[in-house]
Amino acid sequence: MMWTDSRYFLQAEQQMDQNWTLMKHGLPNTPSQEEWLVKTLPEGSRVGVDPFLLSHEQWKQIQKHLKIAGQTLVAVNQNLVDIVSGDERPLPPNAPVQVLDMKYAGESWEDKVINIRKQMKEKMAEYLVVTALDEVAWLFNLRGSDIEYNPVFFSYAVIGTDSVHLFIDESKVTDAIKRHLRADKTSSENGDGSQNMSVEIHPYQSIQSFLAAIYGKSDIGPRTWISSKSSYALINIIPKGRRIIQSSPIALAKAIKNEVEIQGMRNAHIKDAVALCEFFAWLEKEVPKGHVTEISAADKAEEFRSQQEEYVSLSFATISSIGPNGAIIHYKPSEETNLTLNCNEVYLCDSGAQFKDGTTDVTRTMHFGTPTQYEKEAYTRMVKGHIGLSMAVFPNGTKGYQLDSFARQYLWEVGLDYGHGTGHGVGSFLNVHEGPCSISYRATGTDVAIQANMIFSDEPGFYEDGSFGVRLENLVVVTKADTKHNFKDRGFLTFEPITLVPVQLKMLEPTLLNEKEITWLNNYHSVCRDVIGKALQEQGRKDALQWLMKETEPLG
Amino acid sequence: MMWTDSRYFLQAEQQMDQNWTLMKHGLPNTPSQEEWLVKTLPEGSRVGVDPFLLSHEQWKQIQKHLKIAGQTLVAVNQNLVDIVSGDERPLPPNAPVQVLDMKYAGESWEDKVINIRKQMKEKMAEYLVVTALDEVAWLFNLRGSDIEYNPVFFSYAVIGTDSVHLFIDESKVTDAIKRHLRADKTSSENGDGSQNMSVEIHPYQSIQSFLAAIYGKSDIGPRTWISSKSSYALINIIPKGRRIIQSSPIALAKAIKNEVEIQGMRNAHIKDAVALCEFFAWLEKEVPKGHVTEISAADKAEEFRSQQEEYVSLSFATISSIGPNGAIIHYKPSEETNLTLNCNEVYLCDSGAQFKDGTTDVTRTMHFGTPTQYEKEAYTRMVKGHIGLSMAVFPNGTKGYQLDSFARQYLWEVGLDYGHGTGHGVGSFLNVHEGPCSISYRATGTDVAIQANMIFSDEPGFYEDGSFGVRLENLVVVTKADTKHNFKDRGFLTFEPITLVPVQLKMLEPTLLNEKEITWLNNYHSVCRDVIGKALQEQGRKDALQWLMKETEPLG
Repeated sequence: MMWTDSRYFLQAEQQMDQNWTLMKHGLPNTPSQEEWLVKTLPEGSRVGVDPFLLSHEQWKQIQKHLKIAGQTLVAVNQNLVDIVSGDERPLPPNAPVQVLDMKYAGESWEDKVINIRKQMKEKMAEYLVVTALDEVAWLFNLRGSDIEYNPVFFSYAVIGTDSVHLFIDESKVTDAIKRHLRADKTSSENGDGSQNMSVEIHPYQSIQSFLAAIYGKSDIGPRTWISSKSSYALINIIPKGRRIIQSSPIALAKAIKNEVEIQGMRNAHIKDAVALCEFFAWLEKEVPKGHVTEISAADKAEEFRSQQEEYVSLSFATISSIGPNGAIIHYKPSEETNLTLNCNEVYLCDSGAQFKDGTTDVTRTMHFGTPTQYEKEAYTRMVKGHIGLSMAVFPNGTKGYQLDSFARQYLWEVGLDYGHGTGHGVGSFLNVHEGPCSISYRATGTDVAIQANMIFSDEPGFYEDGSFGVRLENLVVVTKADTKHNFKDRGFLTFEPITLVPVQLKMLEPTLLNEKEITWLNNYHSVCRDVIGKALQEQGRKDALQWLMKETEPLG
Repeated sequence: MMWTDSRYFLQAEQQMDQNWTLMKHGLPNTPSQEEWLVKTLPEGSRVGVDPFLLSHEQWKQIQKHLKIAGQTLVAVNQNLVDIVSGDERPLPPNAPVQVLDMKYAGESWEDKVINIRKQMKEKMAEYLVVTALDEVAWLFNLRGSDIEYNPVFFSYAVIGTDSVHLFIDESKVTDAIKRHLRADKTSSENGDGSQNMSVEIHPYQSIQSFLAAIYGKSDIGPRTWISSKSSYALINIIPKGRRIIQSSPIALAKAIKNEVEIQGMRNAHIKDAVALCEFFAWLEKEVPKGHVTEISAADKAEEFRSQQEEYVSLSFATISSIGPNGAIIHYKPSEETNLTLNCNEVYLCDSGAQFKDGTTDVTRTMHFGTPTQYEKEAYTRMVKGHIGLSMAVFPNGTKGYQLDSFARQYLWEVGLDYGHGTGHGVGSFLNVHEGPCSISYRATGTDVAIQANMIFSDEPGFYEDGSFGVRLENLVVVTKADTKHNFKDRGFLTFEPITLVPVQLKMLEPTLLNEKEITWLNNYHSVCRDVIGKALQEQGRKDALQWLMKETEPLG
C-alpha cells in the first residue's frame, strides 16, 4: 500500500510494480491510512511506527482512530528500513555553513531572538524548540547545502529566556560562524542587564539528551513551546503538562518579509526573468529543428540562470514537460521518459532558482505551433483564474482558503478543475515551499491569516491525463490595497506580481477574456517590457529583448 | 465580561449597563474566553463551569488552554444561576408532540433507523446517542413546540443495534404517538429476523442513568457514538475508550433533503412569497402615510403568512428594521426601539415561517423613496455577490468555506465587507438554522462537503453602523449542474433559488451590473412572475399581483 495525493497519481502508477497498491489520497472513496488500518486489522492489533518520522499531530490523529477500534500505535525506535538498507544508506551531508550577510537578511539574528522572546513571554514559555530546518537557517541568518535545492543544514535550535542553543555537526561550524553567533562569548559577559546573546553550540544528536536533562525524571519544570509538526519522539521528551504544542512563531515571522528581503526577491526575479526570456527565445528558435528534449531544455534553462549574479542553485528540480508528460503534475524528466519538444504539443516549464538575494519559482506554458481549441479553452480559463486571484482585494484577516476558489471559478464553470492547491509561501533564499500560510482548498481550522509582505505563488493549472498540462505561475507579494472605503478600519490587501515573464498570448482564446482581464494582461506585459527590457538591454541580450518585445504586444 | 460575535455588537452595547464589559469575539484583538482566563487568573486557579452548558469540544478547548497555564477547569453540577433565580425560573414547556405525516416527511422513521444502523456498523458503534433536538424530531418524524419558532421537543434518543429509545416527558406522548413509534409492540414480536423496530419510551431525565447502566463501573462495554457537540456532562458518562466522538450521522442525513421534502419546501416558498408580495404591496401603499412602525409591519407580515395553508408559526423573530436599526444584524424591534417606517431610509425585513410542508427564511431590502448613491452602491455590490454565489458551479466535494468569498468579492473590491457568514442550512419544517454545512469564511478543518439536495440560505449583506443595513436572502437548493465537461467524473453542482420574491430594482445601480448579472435577475424575476403570479391569481390577491408585475419588469 502506498498513499499519495493527486500530484503523484500518474507518476506512482508508472513507477510502482504490481506488488504495490496505490491509495489515491484525497479522492472521496480512498480511506486514510488510519481508516484502512482500522478496517483491515483485527481488534487488539499493534501498529509499529518510527516515532521520528511522524509528526506529533499525525501520530495523535492515527492513534485516536486506532484507539476507538481497540488497536494500539507503538513507537519502534529502531527504524526497520534502516536495518534492511544497512551500509547502502548514504552518509549525512557535511558541507560547511555560510553566514548570510545583513544586506540580504535585513534583520540581525539577535533582533530576531529578541522578537521571539517577546512572543514566548506572551505564551508564558521558557523555552522554544525549533525543529524546522528553514526556521533555524532564517533565525541565525545562516545558509547551508545539506538538502538539494534548499539552502538549509541539519540542525535544531532552542531559544531560552536567557540562552540560545544551536545543535549542529561541529565540522560545519567555521570560526566565522562562531564569531557571527558570538559563540566565543560566555553569558557572564552580559553584565549590563541586556539579554544574553551568545549562542551555545551543541552536537546535532544531543538535542534529545539536552531536553531530557531539563526535566530529568520529574513532571515539573519550565514550559516549552514546540510545534505540533515536530516529531512525536521529540515532543514526548517534554512532560505533558509542560508542553505548549502550537505553531512555531518563527514560521510566521519568516513568512512576513522585511523590506530588504522584498527588494532582494524583486532583484532575484529580474535576473530570473532575464534568464527565462533568453531560454524561451532560444526554445522558439531551436524547438522546430527537432533536437531539443525535455532534459536538454531544462539544462539550457539552468545554464542561462547560472550566468546571473549571485546564482546559487536551482530551487527545485525543473519540470520540463511536453504533451502527456505535462499532465504529470510533479514530473521531472528522466532518461526513460524524456520526450523531444515539438510544435504540435503543449510545453509546460516550471522552474526556479536560489540567488543569494532571493528564491524564484515560475511556470510558463507555451505552444510552438497551433494549440487546439480545447487546449486554448482550458488554458484561458486557467489564466482567468490566475488573474482573478492576482487582482483580488480582501480584508486583513482573510485566510488562504477564502481566496483559492477565485482561481478555479472559470474552470468550474465548464466542469474542469485541478488537483492541487493554488499557492504556497516562498522563502527568501530559503525553501521554495514554506508555511505557515497557503492558498488552498484545504483548511485546517487553525489557518493563519494572509498578511502584508508575505510572498505566495499564484499557480492554477489544468491537466488532461495522457494529453497535456497547462499552468501559469507567478510569485506575488501581498501589498496594501488602495480602496475607496475601509470597512471597520480593517485595511485591505491585494497581490503584486514580482515574476515578470510574458504570458504566451497565442494560447489564449481572446473571446473568453473580459475587459478587466485584458487590461491586467496589458499592464503586466508593459511592466515586463519596462523592467526586464531594461535589464536585457544592460546585459546586451538582444535576441531575448526582441523576443520580449514581440511577446508583450498589447492585446487589442 | 460578555463575549458575543459581530451580529450582536451594537445590540450588546445598547442593552448592557456599565457593570458589563463587551468582548467583541472574532475581532483580531479580542482574546477568546480561554485566552482571557489564562492571562487574568493566577497559576493554580480553578474555573467552575456547568458541564451541561458546554459541549465536549468547547470543554476540551478551554481545558487545554487552562492546563498549559497551570489552571483547572472544574465541573460544577449545580448551576449557580439556577440557584439565584430560584422560583423565577420558567417551568419546562409541556405541549403534546405531533406525528409528521409521510406526505411531508417522505421517509419512515423505520427506514431512517435502518440507514443509520448501517453507518453505525461502519463505525463499529453499538449505540448512537442523539442529543440534538432537531435530530430526534427528524429521526422519528415527530414535531413539537417546546421552543419558540423551532418545531422540536425536549428529548434524547439512543439507537442500539437491536433497540431504539426515546427519552421524553411522558405527558407529551399520546396514544397516536405510541402507535406511530410502535411503542406498544415488544421486541420479541420480531421473530422474522428483521430489525427490532419498536421504540422504548423512557422519562426525559433518565438518559443519564440509562447510559450509566450500560457501563456500570466498568471501563469495558459497547462502543457508543456521540457528537462532540453533546454536553461534556453526558459524554463523560461513557468510558473514554468506548466513546466515538464524531459528528452525528443524523445531521448529514437530515441536511440532504428527499424528494418529498424538496417539493414541500418549494410549496412552502410559494405560499410564503404570496404573503410577502401582499406585505410589500401593502407597505408601498401605507408607509408614505407615516403610521407604519417596525412592529406593526412585522405583525402585518405575520398576518399575511398566517392566512396561508398549513401555516404553523414564524420560523424566527421577524427582523423589521428601518435606517440605523437595519445595521443591527439580529435586530428585533421592541417598544423601546420601534421606529416609524419612512420614505427617506432603507427598510430591511428578514422573516420566515414554519409550514407543515417546509420552513422559509427570506430577506428583502426596500426603499420607499430615493436611496443615496452610497446605499445603492453597497446594495448593488452585495446583490452582485448574492448572484455570484447563486450562479456558482463547483465540483462535488466542495466545502462551504470555498464559496463564501464569491458573495463578498464585489464589496471587498471597494473596501467593504459584512461580519457574518453567507449561508446556513435550513431544516424541512424544522430549525431555520441547521448543520452540518454552512457557507462561511470560518473553516473548522472537519467541514462536510456540500451535496446535492441540501438547502442553504444565500444572504450577503452590508451594514453601516448608525445609518443603514442591506441584505438579500434567498433559500437555494443544491442541484446538479449541467456542465460541458466533467473533470475526473466528479460531478458538478450549482444552486437553484426556491425563494421567489422580487429583488427591488430601484435600489440597484445598473452601471455596476454586468450582462450575466442582468440576465440572472431577469430570469429570476420571470420565474417569480410565472410561479408566484399564478398563485396570487388563484388566491385572488389582485393588489399583490399588480405589485409583483411592476417589480418584475425586465432590466434593459
